Amino acid sequence: MAAALCRGKHRLKAFCHSAVRLSSRNITGQFDYDLVVIGGGSGGLACSKEAAQLGQSVAVLDYVEPSVRGTKWGLGGTCVNVGCIPKKLMHQAALLGTALRTDSGKYGWRISGSVSHDWVSMAGAVQNYVRSLNWGHRVQLQDKNVKYLNMKGSLLDPHTIRGLNARGKEATVTARNIVIATGGRPKYPTHVPGAREHGITSDDLFWLKESPGKTLVVGASYVALECAGFLTGIGLDTTVMVRSIALRGFDQQMSRLVTDHMEAYGTHFCWSCVPKKVEKLPSGLLQVTWTDTERQQEHQDTFSSVLWAVGRAPESEALNLKHVGVELNTDTGKIIIGDDEQTSVPSIYAIGDIAEGRPELTPTAIKAGKLLARRLAGHSNQLMNYDNVPTTVFTPLEYGCVGLSEEEAERRYGSDDIEVFHAFYKPLEFTIAERDASQCYIKVVCERAEPQRVLGLHFTGPSAGEVTQGFALGFQCGFTYSQLCDTVGIHPTCAEEFTKLHITKRSGLDATVTGC
Amino acid sequence: MAAALCRGKHRLKAFCHSAVRLSSRNITGQFDYDLVVIGGGSGGLACSKEAAQLGQSVAVLDYVEPSVRGTKWGLGGTCVNVGCIPKKLMHQAALLGTALRTDSGKYGWRISGSVSHDWVSMAGAVQNYVRSLNWGHRVQLQDKNVKYLNMKGSLLDPHTIRGLNARGKEATVTARNIVIATGGRPKYPTHVPGAREHGITSDDLFWLKESPGKTLVVGASYVALECAGFLTGIGLDTTVMVRSIALRGFDQQMSRLVTDHMEAYGTHFCWSCVPKKVEKLPSGLLQVTWTDTERQQEHQDTFSSVLWAVGRAPESEALNLKHVGVELNTDTGKIIIGDDEQTSVPSIYAIGDIAEGRPELTPTAIKAGKLLARRLAGHSNQLMNYDNVPTTVFTPLEYGCVGLSEEEAERRYGSDDIEVFHAFYKPLEFTIAERDASQCYIKVVCERAEPQRVLGLHFTGPSAGEVTQGFALGFQCGFTYSQLCDTVGIHPTCAEEFTKLHITKRSGLDATVTGC
Repeated sequence: MAAALCRGKHRLKAFCHSAVRLSSRNITGQFDYDLVVIGGGSGGLACSKEAAQLGQSVAVLDYVEPSVRGTKWGLGGTCVNVGCIPKKLMHQAALLGTALRTDSGKYGWRISGSVSHDWVSMAGAVQNYVRSLNWGHRVQLQDKNVKYLNMKGSLLDPHTIRGLNARGKEATVTARNIVIATGGRPKYPTHVPGAREHGITSDDLFWLKESPGKTLVVGASYVALECAGFLTGIGLDTTVMVRSIALRGFDQQMSRLVTDHMEAYGTHFCWSCVPKKVEKLPSGLLQVTWTDTERQQEHQDTFSSVLWAVGRAPESEALNLKHVGVELNTDTGKIIIGDDEQTSVPSIYAIGDIAEGRPELTPTAIKAGKLLARRLAGHSNQLMNYDNVPTTVFTPLEYGCVGLSEEEAERRYGSDDIEVFHAFYKPLEFTIAERDASQCYIKVVCERAEPQRVLGLHFTGPSAGEVTQGFALGFQCGFTYSQLCDTVGIHPTCAEEFTKLHITKRSGLDATVTGC
Repeated sequence: MAAALCRGKHRLKAFCHSAVRLSSRNITGQFDYDLVVIGGGSGGLACSKEAAQLGQSVAVLDYVEPSVRGTKWGLGGTCVNVGCIPKKLMHQAALLGTALRTDSGKYGWRISGSVSHDWVSMAGAVQNYVRSLNWGHRVQLQDKNVKYLNMKGSLLDPHTIRGLNARGKEATVTARNIVIATGGRPKYPTHVPGAREHGITSDDLFWLKESPGKTLVVGASYVALECAGFLTGIGLDTTVMVRSIALRGFDQQMSRLVTDHMEAYGTHFCWSCVPKKVEKLPSGLLQVTWTDTERQQEHQDTFSSVLWAVGRAPESEALNLKHVGVELNTDTGKIIIGDDEQTSVPSIYAIGDIAEGRPELTPTAIKAGKLLARRLAGHSNQLMNYDNVPTTVFTPLEYGCVGLSEEEAERRYGSDDIEVFHAFYKPLEFTIAERDASQCYIKVVCERAEPQRVLGLHFTGPSAGEVTQGFALGFQCGFTYSQLCDTVGIHPTCAEEFTKLHITKRSGLDATVTGC
């Protein structure tokens, strides 16, 4: 591995020299390292860099098992390679399509010729950018004196990790503490013939060399909807197949707004449908057969690509966790942890998507990883607070939220004891563009009793992530409805609509914002 | 006037019937109305509608004195007609230009022909939208039983207003309380020959039937920079002439980032220059002569349009305020008021831009107007809180802020007692677009002592208004730096950079955000 790295750029030279020390033991007393992190994704990298910064000796093992289709990528984990980053960039490409084809003419722009989209050039640009991030992460580890081992890690005992590289070379390292941060991978369905042979997942989509063409996306998680959204936006015929509900776990009124908008935007939806089989035709097209469970009818159509977005799962098997005594949830395959991220084995911790009950989000993994590193280094005892984590779904109409869904607030407080303020609004930019704003909506769920503490905040509209972030800060302060109303708006923005909310759902009044 | 209105659309019919009651007196006891508002802009309309909703009898007088160039518009005031709304829409047109010409190709979009911008179609769309808002405001007043009088109001005594319509017809109305909300108008320079004859202001720009062409913008207020920004963005050769500093009153580091970006974006700047004269050439072009005060040199160039953006002032003369005993600031012409918006005459109040010391912003005028209406109706004693009012400058690189500038924090607290956290960041969307992010920057100014209460927050970047709004809520809660840090980010957004701030200016460390 050291040799392979040394073929890399100049800047890694110092790193290569230190990498050969891999097999030397006891450089920090009893163990090779104070901390070894398995998994070089968002959480693992943040944890390892923070620990190194605090003077700990640290190594990170990262190894990307190629996808079923053979897609591989570099250091940085899901977010950088096959998640947030390429997703948001392709979403941006789709937004630019709307800007170009729908809006710009209304705003006075004249395009004399035709407009088309070229997957190869978009994907190439995205892939190049992701590679630059892979490289950046390598350099950062080096700069912070974290040893990077391009090896697949598994546990031998509570302090010993076995690493195996791509050429079968093996090594063991020991550590006072071990953090497991290997995340998760997309699942394939188990009972659909042809699914695995002919389908792809989000692990492949962003790295396709050619346009996926007419695509069937199976699933209705945020991953499914985001992918279907940008594929539609760049002009591909895209269908989403939904077994039951979309965006499970999210506020369901908001979820319907998101999918209603997608349907209006051109994405096809097959509701209450489950795939039955996928066959490859002589033409190379994929013929998919599915069942409409509501009408008990069978349907067939052909697609160029079938994207499975039916959930994610950790690859905990390969880590040899049970052998070492690390307790797992046998249903999810995730690692059971305490508030301090500790597993059932005192020297072993888990963060990020592989940890049971944690939000599968980059920023929580990063923050949890940093805080864990500080605690392990004895610099702090602050625990990660997983409450009120904001997030945004980057569908064509973006959806940002923080705090409780309306359903969850009802469940916890009772519908008599919550007050829901809401408004349908029209983004100023939509007016001249003659864009439909039917699904642009905001909702704030509060305790009904004074001081009407805010429990949940929801927004669909442009720049939802940018809008939602600041309000998430409010949750750190336990803000109330009257503090929201006392905030002066910034005009003209979409976000200012939050400060003007005054219609309650209970009143039954029309919640459509009118005028300026 | 009633006759003129009756020529309008059907919906105003009921209104026309009631309008003829104008001259009847004592319908609410001693006075014609509980409240008469002079000025149908953001503040006046909000105040009048709120009062009517609380059961008060209310009239609004609104009359638009045509600009020097003869531009006129309808109900709604500066924001709707010649301010925020058309400005933001033309800014959006400019942003679409960047999306179209700079970004889209990098994201895979192929445009086979050429791209150009057509002022007539953009301005026509903007003007139509503004007219729809004028109409919406008329309908809203009618729906809320506010009498609308298209008359220019002036005071006869503390309870009596004289109204004069366009055809010279006069009427008087009496009111228990009078609210003055006539706002301000752009100023012309007094000592520049040709300025008034050949120049336009922001009162004209948005209503031009033809493109202004090569434009000189004189001034460096936010109005000046915003106009110059969108003119550049839609492809016009645009120059800004600045006497001393840009964005006076704003944080000056941020101001420099905004103008640095504009220069990089293609707007020309003449720093330390003052105009001397404007002459119309036989070609119709305007020849402008100016002095570079630093080098003591004279320069000349020709422009198609000269836009004066050298400040705004109220037209308080016409209101006959002194006669009634309403105290003015003789320098600014603005009305001196107390915390409760009351003038030196107990029955007369002032809100919005004509009120001395108030921020010239739509949302503050609206909120102040509503709160005043509630107090006058005896429904509340809540005063308007003018602290920590957020705002956003919609220059090509937008700038959002709330709370104190760094200079003001230093002045109030001393530089040893504040801590400034900052970061230069790169919006994800800029990467593939290969856009320069040198001026994308965030800054949070805190008290240095624990708990490091946040005093000011500043952001340059895309969607700055949407980013800033939520953080403004934090100021209602007196939030601290650690609450900001404990907030989980939404990835990938620009706003999340606030939650990751950790470099202080005092440390002298590089504040450039690297990696993912």
